[in-house]
Amino acid sequence: MTRTAAIIGGGVIGAGWAARFLLNGWNVRVFDPEPSARERVHAVLDAARLALPGLGDVALPPEGELSFPGLISESVRGAEWVQESVPERIELKQKIYQAIQLHMEEDAILASSTSGFTPTELQVSSASPGQIIVAHPFNPVYLLPLVELVASDRTAPDLVARAQDTLNAIGMFPLTVRAEVPAHVADRLLEAVWREALWLVKDGVATTGEIDDAIRMGFGLRWAQMGLFETYRIAGGDGGMEHFLGQFGPALKWPWTKLTDVPEMDAELVRNIASQSDTQSGALSIRELEAQRDRNLTGFLRVLGQQGWGAGNVLRAADDRNLSAAGVPATFDDIADPAAPTRTVHRAVPLDWLDYNGHMTEARYLHVFGDATDRMMTLIGCDRDYIAAGKSFFTVETHIRHLDEVTAGAPLVVDTRVIAGGGKKMHLWHELRSGDRLLATAEHMLLHVDLKTRRSVALTQVLAERLGVLVKAQSRLPAPEGLSRAIGDAL
Amino acid sequence: MTRTAAIIGGGVIGAGWAARFLLNGWNVRVFDPEPSARERVHAVLDAARLALPGLGDVALPPEGELSFPGLISESVRGAEWVQESVPERIELKQKIYQAIQLHMEEDAILASSTSGFTPTELQVSSASPGQIIVAHPFNPVYLLPLVELVASDRTAPDLVARAQDTLNAIGMFPLTVRAEVPAHVADRLLEAVWREALWLVKDGVATTGEIDDAIRMGFGLRWAQMGLFETYRIAGGDGGMEHFLGQFGPALKWPWTKLTDVPEMDAELVRNIASQSDTQSGALSIRELEAQRDRNLTGFLRVLGQQGWGAGNVLRAADDRNLSAAGVPATFDDIADPAAPTRTVHRAVPLDWLDYNGHMTEARYLHVFGDATDRMMTLIGCDRDYIAAGKSFFTVETHIRHLDEVTAGAPLVVDTRVIAGGGKKMHLWHELRSGDRLLATAEHMLLHVDLKTRRSVALTQVLAERLGVLVKAQSRLPAPEGLSRAIGDAL
Repeated sequence: MTRTAAIIGGGVIGAGWAARFLLNGWNVRVFDPEPSARERVHAVLDAARLALPGLGDVALPPEGELSFPGLISESVRGAEWVQESVPERIELKQKIYQAIQLHMEEDAILASSTSGFTPTELQVSSASPGQIIVAHPFNPVYLLPLVELVASDRTAPDLVARAQDTLNAIGMFPLTVRAEVPAHVADRLLEAVWREALWLVKDGVATTGEIDDAIRMGFGLRWAQMGLFETYRIAGGDGGMEHFLGQFGPALKWPWTKLTDVPEMDAELVRNIASQSDTQSGALSIRELEAQRDRNLTGFLRVLGQQGWGAGNVLRAADDRNLSAAGVPATFDDIADPAAPTRTVHRAVPLDWLDYNGHMTEARYLHVFGDATDRMMTLIGCDRDYIAAGKSFFTVETHIRHLDEVTAGAPLVVDTRVIAGGGKKMHLWHELRSGDRLLATAEHMLLHVDLKTRRSVALTQVLAERLGVLVKAQSRLPAPEGLSRAIGDAL
Repeated sequence: MTRTAAIIGGGVIGAGWAARFLLNGWNVRVFDPEPSARERVHAVLDAARLALPGLGDVALPPEGELSFPGLISESVRGAEWVQESVPERIELKQKIYQAIQLHMEEDAILASSTSGFTPTELQVSSASPGQIIVAHPFNPVYLLPLVELVASDRTAPDLVARAQDTLNAIGMFPLTVRAEVPAHVADRLLEAVWREALWLVKDGVATTGEIDDAIRMGFGLRWAQMGLFETYRIAGGDGGMEHFLGQFGPALKWPWTKLTDVPEMDAELVRNIASQSDTQSGALSIRELEAQRDRNLTGFLRVLGQQGWGAGNVLRAADDRNLSAAGVPATFDDIADPAAPTRTVHRAVPLDWLDYNGHMTEARYLHVFGDATDRMMTLIGCDRDYIAAGKSFFTVETHIRHLDEVTAGAPLVVDTRVIAGGGKKMHLWHELRSGDRLLATAEHMLLHVDLKTRRSVALTQVLAERLGVLVKAQSRLPAPEGLSRAIGDAL
């Protein structure tokens, strides 16, 4: 049977929860007296539908049904999860809980998105405090998995386990907090940074943009995958966490930050941290942690490079600087000899392109050949501006022979021949090498298309002319071995 | 002419600098009296060679030459950049600077990796303070772009610009800090978090592992791409930063963290932050920032999913839970009808798989087909354990017809036929659909290989038997349209 969630409060957080439940197959009822809530929920849902279903490699269940009941009673009746995300005013929350708990099912869960209040505070005026728990998510709720789960002594004993199950079922990561403290865990860390950052701005040490760069060009990338303690465990080297604490501990006594209340780094705290860190990370050696970190960071940085964002712009600038020395022409006029195959790619194999066979995975062969095709498109005039103006090429057919394997860091070059180009078509032949080894060949047929109609159209004059120059100049080369071959021809 | 850098101190940081310079084409001389330094530098270099060259899409220049001179004088003579990364003891640094500056070139730069000291402190006993600057990097130096660049009044006026140029040239991101403060910018933020985290552990609110999860399952992912202020700008919605500060500012007065020294959030500070935030992020609307954030986060999460690490494990667990409901068999016995094509993929198009044409990029077609092939391998018995035991399949030939396009969030299914399977070979036919639309077909020839010899070997019995069952059952189906076709056959 389809499960039902009631979302009380349709702001950005409530809408994110609605998306999480709905796209994981739950029926969702959103209650928010504000007329703008419906539109906001749909806007968040539109964004979530683009992103959430494609996060994993397996389809989510069919979407549930979304409704906007006019009454709290209609919203919560029959729902097994009620998520409250109204503004952070304790009296408001306590009052709404009385209305919710009049109508909600006895065994349902009433979870609050509060970032600041403790369950004990939320339960103060409730007749059924046992139903109440804190489930604090992070924006965007439809993408970030973290939910801080906090119970009080009055929360029903089985509620935490049941809440964990539900949160797991909608693809989230419930982190059960061991004690009730204001702001739970994550927001305490965030607020510490926020305060220090405000001092830096106020004191004129850095602007907001500089502070953000100080985060996202450096430790922010580390924290997206390992967090604070595991990163420092690595910094301690083979000595591990105790060594790190020995080195860094005393530094805490320096008045570096404006925020100087520091716990005594006594033997007990050191032992405690070191032992928790062993539990957390001890299954891997420092070398293994470093290798994993490098795979993660390479992946992140390459995502940002593809997006042209943050640290990725540093990679793009480096590529622009290195292109000419790498022997890849940037423009048609840079092609030294049109009668020879054109060097369209010169790169190294990224660390995150390997698969379970320990070599560059098959899809990345086509990735590299696609880059080679993109370069040839740019050279003949189908560059970023041309595409922005509404025309481009679509690949319609591809034939790849995988002849040899290659691993991370190895150099790759692609040399490209234009077999034919005219009418609406471009017919390319790529050869991929690492040093002297021929790794693969690829034959591609592309059609020139109008991006508005998504249909093929004749090549524009400049494209046809440049293709013509290359086809004619290269026609004296012998036909590539393997051209126009079908699978099985030579096996 | 090849440029030369001298690295003084061959610890993890010094070795990271050595890798940065060397892999960007510089000659590098490492000075470290410790005998273990050479081995450590080579270990870091080995890791860097796997990761750094493949970060961008264009090859780096050929590696420079690495040497380990026995004397500081030999190391720094003729070098245009001297990077000091010795332990954080001010007297030690000041003493080494005297030795370095006796021999270094007049127009060379002496940069310190110090995380805590100011340039003024470093310059105290120097006869040429103008050569000295702080260039504080982040571990791993060969991957993270951030370098905090700090000058004092006594640093030569042109040194900052020259240092920026050099750091850009080796693919780094120099962030020039506006004032000399202990710990510069990033480490002040890090230390604020560190102190709060120590309190959380000491008070028993969370363990080190829980704190790391609170970071990497949530805000750490945000910070890897936008940082603190830009994230909060989005949280402010269309009201932007002023709205956010209006909402959040007062919360700073609550005693959330243990670190409670708070700047007065007066009108001037609010105006200052809002205006800096406009400068930083104002070119994009909140909607555009949100969309970019979602593309970045999707990319990060999918990297982690591929790595099976951190938040990626949440995605993997969801995939495992959803597989059966998605109609994809997990084992050979789950195949309901061996005479029909096998459903090998059911997923949605990830947001980060789109290209400049606004549709799923061509390499991701092969990615999906590769996943389909992996599933078929698993079904016939070539699963993770089988591969770990030393045998696998390599794809040797691929033919793809791209028939239609698809965009983010859309559902994808692949149905797979086994055309032949015997001897050393497996011949597969995949059809990719979104709803009723046939998007592409793919024909693959694979060879069964021994992962030790990297050569083809006969199928093991269980694989051959299961392939035989499918081939026989499916032989009654008509041959797929397009099988064994060569490019150009039907165009």
